Amino acid sequence: MFKINDNYLKLPGSYLFSTIAQKVAAYTEAHSEADIIRLGIGDVTQPIAPAIIEAVHKAADEMGTPEGFHGYAPDLGYEFLRSKIAKEDFQARGCDISADEIFVSDGAKCDCGNIQEIFSLDNRIAVCDPVYPVYVDSNVMAGRGGVYDAATERFSDIIYMPCTAENNFAPELPAETPDLIYLCFPNNPTGSVLTKEQLQQWVDYANKVGAVILYDAAYEAYISEDNIPHSIYECEGARTCAIEFRSFSKNAGFTGMRLGFTVVPKDLKCGDVMLHTLWARRHGTKYNGAPYIIQKAGEAVYSPEGKAQLKKQVAYYMQNAHVIYDGLKSAGYTVSGGVNSPYIWMKTPDGMTSWEFFDYLLEHANVVGTPGSGFGPSGEGYFRLTAFGTYENTVKAVERMKQL
Amino acid sequence: MFKINDNYLKLPGSYLFSTIAQKVAAYTEAHSEADIIRLGIGDVTQPIAPAIIEAVHKAADEMGTPEGFHGYAPDLGYEFLRSKIAKEDFQARGCDISADEIFVSDGAKCDCGNIQEIFSLDNRIAVCDPVYPVYVDSNVMAGRGGVYDAATERFSDIIYMPCTAENNFAPELPAETPDLIYLCFPNNPTGSVLTKEQLQQWVDYANKVGAVILYDAAYEAYISEDNIPHSIYECEGARTCAIEFRSFSKNAGFTGMRLGFTVVPKDLKCGDVMLHTLWARRHGTKYNGAPYIIQKAGEAVYSPEGKAQLKKQVAYYMQNAHVIYDGLKSAGYTVSGGVNSPYIWMKTPDGMTSWEFFDYLLEHANVVGTPGSGFGPSGEGYFRLTAFGTYENTVKAVERMKQL
Repeated sequence: MFKINDNYLKLPGSYLFSTIAQKVAAYTEAHSEADIIRLGIGDVTQPIAPAIIEAVHKAADEMGTPEGFHGYAPDLGYEFLRSKIAKEDFQARGCDISADEIFVSDGAKCDCGNIQEIFSLDNRIAVCDPVYPVYVDSNVMAGRGGVYDAATERFSDIIYMPCTAENNFAPELPAETPDLIYLCFPNNPTGSVLTKEQLQQWVDYANKVGAVILYDAAYEAYISEDNIPHSIYECEGARTCAIEFRSFSKNAGFTGMRLGFTVVPKDLKCGDVMLHTLWARRHGTKYNGAPYIIQKAGEAVYSPEGKAQLKKQVAYYMQNAHVIYDGLKSAGYTVSGGVNSPYIWMKTPDGMTSWEFFDYLLEHANVVGTPGSGFGPSGEGYFRLTAFGTYENTVKAVERMKQL
Repeated sequence: MFKINDNYLKLPGSYLFSTIAQKVAAYTEAHSEADIIRLGIGDVTQPIAPAIIEAVHKAADEMGTPEGFHGYAPDLGYEFLRSKIAKEDFQARGCDISADEIFVSDGAKCDCGNIQEIFSLDNRIAVCDPVYPVYVDSNVMAGRGGVYDAATERFSDIIYMPCTAENNFAPELPAETPDLIYLCFPNNPTGSVLTKEQLQQWVDYANKVGAVILYDAAYEAYISEDNIPHSIYECEGARTCAIEFRSFSKNAGFTGMRLGFTVVPKDLKCGDVMLHTLWARRHGTKYNGAPYIIQKAGEAVYSPEGKAQLKKQVAYYMQNAHVIYDGLKSAGYTVSGGVNSPYIWMKTPDGMTSWEFFDYLLEHANVVGTPGSGFGPSGEGYFRLTAFGTYENTVKAVERMKQL
C-alpha cells in the first residue's frame, strides 16, 4: 500500500495568500458595492513594457516558421540570455560571474523552493523571522522541519533569526550553527536592507562555518541608496559560499510571464563536488527550460529601450512606496522599508494583532494588506503594504487609512 | 558544514541525451562536411500552427495594456484552459474528470519528475525496462534507488518490468508488489501500446494491492487504432488509483513553448488525505503557474482551426513513422512501434550492441538515433528512431539505412 509524504501534513494551515484571497472573497460577496484596493500580494499591475511585447511578437513569428522554430531549449537557458545576464547584472557591477554559472528558470519562487533538493536532508536551515513562506515550507515538505509547535509557531529543527525593530530588521548571526542560510535583501516582507559591510559579515561567517547562503535578490531593482549591494557577489569570498536567486517579476513585471535565474558559482563545493554540477543535474532531470518566447522577452529587458522603459516602471512603483511611507508616517503610524524596496512594513496601531488589523482595514477602509504574522511569529503586530498597485489606488488607499 | 544530497552521486553517467549530443558534436567537428540527420531525441521540427501563433500575438498585446495585463496566474492554471482540457480530452471520451482535477504546468517532464515528492520515501517504485530515464532518475535523486549495481545496471530498491519482444513490449504484472507504478503508453521508447483490456488489468491490480499508477500519456495523439485507450480514465476504477500526465509537446509541437498538465482525481486517497490536496500544496509552494501567453496558446490547441491544423501536423509525423517502419522492414530489419506512436523500435543488426549500432549508423549513414540500452538493460540490442524529423530528411535517412 502506497504512503504519502507525511511531512506535508506538518504544514500549518494553507498558504498565506490563499487565506487572504478567501477572506477578501467572503467580504466581497457580502459587500458587493465595496471598492476594494489590494496592496497585499506582491503582484505588479503595470503592463509589460513595449520593447518586451515587441520581442514576444518577433519570437512568436519565428516559432511559426520552419527556419525560426525552436524546440527544446538548452536545459540551462539560451546563451543569448545567459551572457546578457552575466554581463549586465554581474560583470558590470564588478562581480566575477560567468554566463555558464547562470541557470535560467521559470521564476525565483520555483528555484527557491527547489534548491534544497540538492542538499542533505539532515542539513539545518536558518531563516529570518518574519520570512517569505516558501523557504520554510519547501524544507518542511522535504523533511527538514522536525516537530511543529503551534504555541511558538516554530519548527523544532529550523533556526529562526528574529528581525525586529530592535535590530532594525536585520538578522544577527545565529547562536546555533546552520548549514543553509536563507537571506533575502531587499527584504520581503520588511523592506529592510543590509549594507555591503553587513552582508560581508554574513559571507565571512558562512565561509568560516561551512554554510551555504541562499541569497534571494528578487528586489534588487528597487535599491536607491549607495552602499547597498545588488548582488551578494559584490562581497569578497561569496563565490565559495553563496547561491543567488534573481527574478524578472519585480524589475520587469514578469509575474505572469515567468522568468528568473539562479547563480551557482563553480567555486562552491562540498569536497570535490560542485553544487553547479548537482543543480545542472536537477535541472536536466526535473525541468525542461523556459519557453523560447519568454527567454527572448527576457533578453529585451537588457536592450536600451527595455532598460529605459523599465527604469520608468520601477520609478512609478517607488513613487507609490513614497506615498505610502510618507502618508502613513505623517498620520502617526510607525513605518519602515519603502526606500530600497517596494514593501512598507508598518506597526499595527493600538496593539492590534496582524490579523485583527487585516480585518479592521478590510472592513473600514476596504484596503487589503498582508498580516505580518503570516510571515512568522516575529511579524506579529506588523503589517505589509506593497507599492505594486496603481498610483491612483495607492493614493486613495493611503487617504482612507489616514482617516481611520 | 553543509552536506550535499549524495543520492545524486548514485546516478550513473550523465543524462542519455547529453551523451548523444556530445558524441554527435565530436563527430561533426571531425567531419564538418557530414550531412547529419537527427532522428534521435524526441524533439519536433514542424513550426507552431498558425492558430496558436495568432493566440500568442493576441495574448502578448493584452499583456501590454493596463486592462489586459495578467500577473500571477492561478497556481493550478487558468480556468479557461482547465475547462477546455476537461471537456475535450476527458469528458468527450466518457472519462469522469472535472476541470478542478486538472493541474496546468510547464510540461510533463517536470510533472513526472516532481510527482514522487508527494509520496513517502520508503515507497517502492516499479518501472518498465526500457524506460524514459526521468522516472528512475528523479526517484534515485530523492533516495528511493538503493544501491546501484553496475553489472546489472539496476538499482536494488527499484522493481524493473522487462518489456521485450517475448511479451510484445508490454510489461507483465510484477512479482514483488510496488507502491508506485510508472506506465507510459503509447510507450517511449518502444512505441508499443496497451489495449483497453490490458490497461484495465493494471488498474484492477493497482486497486487490489493499493498502488498508484503514474500514467504518462504524452503520446496519446498518435494513437490510430481503435480499442487503444487515450486516457487511463477510460478504465473502470482508475479514479481511485491513477494520476495521468499529459503534454502539449507532441500533439502541438510545444517542446519549446512548455505546457503540460497532470490529472489528480479527488477520489485518489491515502486514508483521508487526497493526493489532490498534496499536489495542490506542492504546486502552491514550489511552482508559480505557466505563463499567461502560453496558456492562451494552449487554449488555441482546442479551437476548431487549431484542431484542424494539428491534425495535419500529427498526420505529417505519422507519415514519417510509416516511412521508417515500412522502409526498415522491407530492408530486413526487425521493427515495431510506429503505428500508434511516433517512435520506431528496431533490433540492431548482426548482434551489435545499441551503442555499437549508434556509432556505426552515425559514421556510415550520418544518421543519429537513440541507443536502446540508454533506456535500461532490456533495451540492449535495440535502437529508437523518431518520426519527428522533416519528411525529406526521414526519407533520406531511411534510404541511407537501406543501403548499409
